[in-house]
Amino acid sequence: MAIVSIIGGSGYGGGELLRLLLSHPNVEVKQVTSRSHLGEYVYQVHPNLRKRTQLKFSDPAALESVDILFLAQPHGQAQHHIEEYSKLAPKIIDLSADFRLRDASFYEQWYGDKHTAPEWLSKFVYGLPELHRAEMSTANYVSGVGCNATAGNLALVPLVKAGLLDLSSPIFIEIKVGSSEGGVEGNSGSLHAERANVIRTFSAFGHRHTAEVIQEMGVKDVSLTMTAVDLVRGVLATAHAKVKQGAATKDLWKAYRAAATENPFVRVVKEQRGIYRVPEPKILAGSNYADLGFELDESNGHVVSMCAIDNLMKGASGSAVQCMNLMMGWEETMGLEFAGLHPI
Amino acid sequence: MAIVSIIGGSGYGGGELLRLLLSHPNVEVKQVTSRSHLGEYVYQVHPNLRKRTQLKFSDPAALESVDILFLAQPHGQAQHHIEEYSKLAPKIIDLSADFRLRDASFYEQWYGDKHTAPEWLSKFVYGLPELHRAEMSTANYVSGVGCNATAGNLALVPLVKAGLLDLSSPIFIEIKVGSSEGGVEGNSGSLHAERANVIRTFSAFGHRHTAEVIQEMGVKDVSLTMTAVDLVRGVLATAHAKVKQGAATKDLWKAYRAAATENPFVRVVKEQRGIYRVPEPKILAGSNYADLGFELDESNGHVVSMCAIDNLMKGASGSAVQCMNLMMGWEETMGLEFAGLHPI
Amino acid sequence: MAIVSIIGGSGYGGGELLRLLLSHPNVEVKQVTSRSHLGEYVYQVHPNLRKRTQLKFSDPAALESVDILFLAQPHGQAQHHIEEYSKLAPKIIDLSADFRLRDASFYEQWYGDKHTAPEWLSKFVYGLPELHRAEMSTANYVSGVGCNATAGNLALVPLVKAGLLDLSSPIFIEIKVGSSEGGVEGNSGSLHAERANVIRTFSAFGHRHTAEVIQEMGVKDVSLTMTAVDLVRGVLATAHAKVKQGAATKDLWKAYRAAATENPFVRVVKEQRGIYRVPEPKILAGSNYADLGFELDESNGHVVSMCAIDNLMKGASGSAVQCMNLMMGWEETMGLEFAGLHPI
Amino acid sequence: MAIVSIIGGSGYGGGELLRLLLSHPNVEVKQVTSRSHLGEYVYQVHPNLRKRTQLKFSDPAALESVDILFLAQPHGQAQHHIEEYSKLAPKIIDLSADFRLRDASFYEQWYGDKHTAPEWLSKFVYGLPELHRAEMSTANYVSGVGCNATAGNLALVPLVKAGLLDLSSPIFIEIKVGSSEGGVEGNSGSLHAERANVIRTFSAFGHRHTAEVIQEMGVKDVSLTMTAVDLVRGVLATAHAKVKQGAATKDLWKAYRAAATENPFVRVVKEQRGIYRVPEPKILAGSNYADLGFELDESNGHVVSMCAIDNLMKGASGSAVQCMNLMMGWEETMGLEFAGLHPI
Repeated sequence: MAIVSIIGGSGYGGGELLRLLLSHPNVEVKQVTSRSHLGEYVYQVHPNLRKRTQLKFSDPAALESVDILFLAQPHGQAQHHIEEYSKLAPKIIDLSADFRLRDASFYEQWYGDKHTAPEWLSKFVYGLPELHRAEMSTANYVSGVGCNATAGNLALVPLVKAGLLDLSSPIFIEIKVGSSEGGVEGNSGSLHAERANVIRTFSAFGHRHTAEVIQEMGVKDVSLTMTAVDLVRGVLATAHAKVKQGAATKDLWKAYRAAATENPFVRVVKEQRGIYRVPEPKILAGSNYADLGFELDESNGHVVSMCAIDNLMKGASGSAVQCMNLMMGWEETMGLEFAGLHPI
Repeated sequence: MAIVSIIGGSGYGGGELLRLLLSHPNVEVKQVTSRSHLGEYVYQVHPNLRKRTQLKFSDPAALESVDILFLAQPHGQAQHHIEEYSKLAPKIIDLSADFRLRDASFYEQWYGDKHTAPEWLSKFVYGLPELHRAEMSTANYVSGVGCNATAGNLALVPLVKAGLLDLSSPIFIEIKVGSSEGGVEGNSGSLHAERANVIRTFSAFGHRHTAEVIQEMGVKDVSLTMTAVDLVRGVLATAHAKVKQGAATKDLWKAYRAAATENPFVRVVKEQRGIYRVPEPKILAGSNYADLGFELDESNGHVVSMCAIDNLMKGASGSAVQCMNLMMGWEETMGLEFAGLHPI
Repeated sequence: MAIVSIIGGSGYGGGELLRLLLSHPNVEVKQVTSRSHLGEYVYQVHPNLRKRTQLKFSDPAALESVDILFLAQPHGQAQHHIEEYSKLAPKIIDLSADFRLRDASFYEQWYGDKHTAPEWLSKFVYGLPELHRAEMSTANYVSGVGCNATAGNLALVPLVKAGLLDLSSPIFIEIKVGSSEGGVEGNSGSLHAERANVIRTFSAFGHRHTAEVIQEMGVKDVSLTMTAVDLVRGVLATAHAKVKQGAATKDLWKAYRAAATENPFVRVVKEQRGIYRVPEPKILAGSNYADLGFELDESNGHVVSMCAIDNLMKGASGSAVQCMNLMMGWEETMGLEFAGLHPI
Repeated sequence: MAIVSIIGGSGYGGGELLRLLLSHPNVEVKQVTSRSHLGEYVYQVHPNLRKRTQLKFSDPAALESVDILFLAQPHGQAQHHIEEYSKLAPKIIDLSADFRLRDASFYEQWYGDKHTAPEWLSKFVYGLPELHRAEMSTANYVSGVGCNATAGNLALVPLVKAGLLDLSSPIFIEIKVGSSEGGVEGNSGSLHAERANVIRTFSAFGHRHTAEVIQEMGVKDVSLTMTAVDLVRGVLATAHAKVKQGAATKDLWKAYRAAATENPFVRVVKEQRGIYRVPEPKILAGSNYADLGFELDESNGHVVSMCAIDNLMKGASGSAVQCMNLMMGWEETMGLEFAGLHPI
């Protein structure tokens, strides 16, 4: 039994993490901090946790030592406190963007500010088990993942691993996202009357998560185009790329099937009939699966590769718990068994 | 370990039941039948079950003996086959409407047709543990519950049990429902373009589930008014009634708290601040909770009592699994631990 | 051609009013004020008006004289400035709640504060043409209407006018509303991730619009229960009441048909087949219609009367334009011809 | 005053057309046909038209001569009857796909079947006024437009007309669509419970509307990727392409502004602040506008060009009425003045 705490538990990522940790068989949650909701029952903010815990939000200044510390604060905060946090726990998993990039200048290029703890960047493993499973078994520090980056990376990874991608052609990743990505603060455009019914391409290119795709996939000419749609949870990445000359549908099948075999939370969805023939985030709410699919136009090498995830699960807290399992030597799927719902 | 089968597994209730049974620690699923999807993998119809089971839909004519048989067929079928089903399993849980009412003439009054197996009506226990927990420990046959009836019954039950209701006043129960209630067949009004954005009062009174409220609550002058809203899963019942003279808010608090104490899946939601102050089905998708709340106008005795549930869980398959647990002497909450999601 | 200005044009009611006035054949819009968006093009706030007007939001302190002044400010402001506004225009239409109630103490009872211009209350006509058409032809000051009150009033008015209602029984009006009712400010619960998928009974009774139903319908024992659903525009009121002994369905048909005959924007929806058998706000977005329907249980006199409207049209700005037409002696339907969309 | 009839009036395109024609100042609607709803009032199928017309659906076999005949049948029917239709009216506007392509073999390539009236293909003008305005003034036969093709064409047309596009690079057009595109029949995936909350990439490439983009834009290497999202009306096309070397943002501004100047229903949306900075179908329901926007990455020539429309208006019936206006020498915008709603 490991004792864990969460710094920043009133946001959506922190709440989802808390839900997972409260029902994890090997974990006991000690503290969950929140300045804005200090002293309130966590179930008053996360109403799904009513009757599941009597925890109240505690003061981040009064943190006690634990086995594992989860950081779920807004971006830009963890790097200022990582030294003190490292004294509270031997293992840290940070869901924010602060330690996802390995290179300080690359961080500055995408985030605009100088990183304040560059010496820590090399100590962190990028928190996507599908890419760094082996390293995690010995890691003490694991970063979070960008939800959009995760959808993009997992859409590409079977092609990249199998060497099927034509790296001389640009890669366009169209990403459609639900509103929970915007967090509990939101902006004027997050108001239901303004956000409902949207198909809103809010970022044509330049989204920060692009950096994680460049770093992890080793691709250069890649862009993420972000479109908000009317959904709360869920991301679908649709990547347009070219495969190397001669690559055929059967080669891609092999690459995708391998990904599903190696990774307990990866599934390939490519059906000829029924309603659900392609990956869809709709059925993934609460589940840690990443559903992958593809179509290849053999006449010109145009591949459309899709990845659907729940942005709060595989795209954030679910992957964080999966990382914890690997860091602790536990079963990788422990506490992440929920299958998702149909219909929903 | 009990061996179970499901007759009628391609509908929404059957699919939800299968999801729950596949992850239930004490159960092994043997067969799931479907005539229309015979031979298909169950995950082709219920895509959330991909990588969870390799079961295929089997022929209802080829059913084998099991410990528990679940019937999840459309209404009006189980009564024709109950004799043969009873030879296949010592315990039967029927999710349909066929054995919910104890009186054959009452059935005929509400369903229009003569019941074809009236002698079986007295053998079944009504399948809501919150009302019949004790009987279930020795029952072999348990019926399903109407989802709308369940929301109505649980909205009223604290008041009824505490004797607070003025039975001389009419009770109006306004029920708002999501589209999954309509089932996989639907009708022309179920098409997304016609069903999205609706507030559609499709039944002012006379809904069949009214019969279950009359039978279980012992009230006479009660009506259910049904309104479809834009949501897939979820029911909210808002009951308007009068309390007996002198009944005060503190008396109601006592009655509702007692319900939450006695029943592991009942919660009282009545907060003074925060976003989630009243029961809402939104956060209950996939969970077996029934969230209850109330407001009393002490000046005139008008009470508004609310109950929110997931129609496919507490309103159907979740309650069925809870009944199974009680019939088998297992922990009542076993396999029903999912907390629900926030946000969603 | 009348010259008009709008005070408070950046909110939803003000924007809808502006849209209607810009395309009204007898009107020229001179100024639209907004403090928070001063100097911006109105189409930057109301994007549907792009290419329709080059108006910019102007300073409320720099208002010029006009023929008709529309007040579309938040509640509680118009009463402080009504004297000065009355010097700017001979005719004023106020969309806020400030001059809807005729009695200052009744206002205080429902709004909590003393009215600061009680002498003006008797000068205003309540702004629902279906109730006060004749008075409007000579009125200089017309109030707005509460959107929920309008749905409630129009649900009841055929029964009240025909003397069919049993006034000794309580009237319960269940009202379901879209998110545009919350206005451009909203609250933490208005965030899309929290407001999507809701069925949220946010007010069991005591809603301020109740006062308008009491005043206009002459009923005493009436309550409004408010439930938010996932929709942007639209209100459905479902009123539960008792009719007088002996009243039959044919009597109600006569009363409802009379309402539709007398009022160009009232329709009766009570079909035996098809998808749209009852009043639904879904198809009313942008239209000024109020769709009425009913069901009567002749066995016990329980009547369910429904009214669907677009809260921003018939429930606010559409009725205000209709009032203007009547005050100016123009065709009542002028500028309000949009039929609504199907599907939507 | 022109007399017009509609063949096929019970579908969504036909209903929208009827709504527009009923309020068009220069038009009188004589007949609207429907086999499946023969004899019903049109408002029973299109409930927005209640109190607007007493027309009933008539038999297509009993069509009378008119000035203009609109064909709004499912694809593949008009080509079989065009000879007889041409005897009923001197002018025909066909909303279906039958006469959109100018080349019979190109038709066969994309639609799979031989065209049965190839000699008629050259008589038709492609029905997008933004591309063929001049020809329409003398045309007797005008085709419809594919809604997705229209969004794709209008996204590209400013770049194509200005010669800014690098035609040696592939063009990927990601198109997101609402459910009304599926028509009144739908399929099993159109059921609300299955279609709500989707982000479903139902066609990676090969969509038939691609043919219209190839024909009208003169591009060869172009693909349309179709994704269904939770919305009823609306299409957003997001085109990814390369501009010619040296092309700068200011060049694109000039090209897009020219499109908006030349075309009354084209607007450019590219704001630096506010909620609505880019084209969005949300605010276009019922309006005939096409909102265009773009982002250019000057470092690599990657242009993201967006076009938002209402698929039933600019993408079908609105363009058809605009074509009629041009064919008849009327004001191009006549009967198409509705501005759209905010919020919605």
